[in-house]
Amino acid sequence: MDTEDLEWETVDTEIDYSCPGFDIRLDSVQFPDGSDGEYHYVDKPGAVVILPFTPQGHVVVIDEWRQAVDHVNRGLPAGTIETDTDGDVEATAARELREETGYVAGSFEHLTTVEPSNGVTNSVHHHFVATDCEPAASQNLDHNEDIQVATTEFDDLLAGILDGDITDARTAVSVMQYAMAHSVAEWLGVTGLREPALDHAQVWNMMGVSFG
Amino acid sequence: MDTEDLEWETVDTEIDYSCPGFDIRLDSVQFPDGSDGEYHYVDKPGAVVILPFTPQGHVVVIDEWRQAVDHVNRGLPAGTIETDTDGDVEATAARELREETGYVAGSFEHLTTVEPSNGVTNSVHHHFVATDCEPAASQNLDHNEDIQVATTEFDDLLAGILDGDITDARTAVSVMQYAMAHSVAEWLGVTGLREPALDHAQVWNMMGVSFG
Repeated sequence: MDTEDLEWETVDTEIDYSCPGFDIRLDSVQFPDGSDGEYHYVDKPGAVVILPFTPQGHVVVIDEWRQAVDHVNRGLPAGTIETDTDGDVEATAARELREETGYVAGSFEHLTTVEPSNGVTNSVHHHFVATDCEPAASQNLDHNEDIQVATTEFDDLLAGILDGDITDARTAVSVMQYAMAHSVAEWLGVTGLREPALDHAQVWNMMGVSFG
Repeated sequence: MDTEDLEWETVDTEIDYSCPGFDIRLDSVQFPDGSDGEYHYVDKPGAVVILPFTPQGHVVVIDEWRQAVDHVNRGLPAGTIETDTDGDVEATAARELREETGYVAGSFEHLTTVEPSNGVTNSVHHHFVATDCEPAASQNLDHNEDIQVATTEFDDLLAGILDGDITDARTAVSVMQYAMAHSVAEWLGVTGLREPALDHAQVWNMMGVSFG
């Protein structure tokens, strides 16, 4: 069976509900067997997640109240793409870093783009590594944002994720992806982030690791 | 400033919208500065994500249409916790693995629990590693599920994530977390998954890796 046989046809689409931050979209669809149905999902702009390093190699993190999960979340700065920066996601990353932390980066590099929960929402998260981040402005927070800025060791952040103390999946994706790219790069004596063309299976074999 | 100063007080809460799969909850809140406000979020049960290994060390994956992102998604089997298995998340993992893939596992081990997008939803993802998975039943899919089952090499799955070909963040979290735990375990000569008590900073130093 080819994966084309899995596709649904969208017959109609409408916004069924709106609230600050997102809409609920209702699609009328035709399933592969020809029957009709409906599908509801969260229609939300993409977001950026920034892994910001200071010149000393520390990571700038934020502690922020998360009403949906009823606790303070330690994680990376992040924010939603707004219309004024559409088409320039790196500019969104620079703006959100500055607004949420007051830090300004020397440079940004795209790390990965993922779908955080594609069974429920069309939103995507664009992850960036920001280097040479220096405090250069005050925070400029939205009305309902209360954010405390801190710096931490990368190793502590990674340990928090692997131990389960840090539960924010956006932060986990950024930090683990960077750690794996970086460790592979170190292993190969490569400076900076790994080139996508590297053969991972070969690299893991070189590390003496077999899975399963 | 202590992180207690970041907390919001929930004054009232209600369901503002309902559709199959989730509700929208509207909380009336008081911000730390004493002002009042509202917060809308997706109220959704937790879910399980399963990283299933066959006795031959292959990973059982699924290809599935994702209407919200308009493409076929390659990723790990996953599913929502239902009332009948509340309190036994491992039973949910076993059920979803069986229903979506037809495979039955020899054993399950909890890998991590994360919040996929805690600015938008209270849902959590419980990740499990399933070992000794064998085809033992037919799929038993929900009405709107069309799922194609395949097996793949773990290395190929990891490479797909690091290269950006696999965009499903749930799969990325499971696979990278397992890879890091497993590689550290291999490095230390430990059999099976890493014990949480290990000192990651020390392990990374042993690997000659410094970050930032």
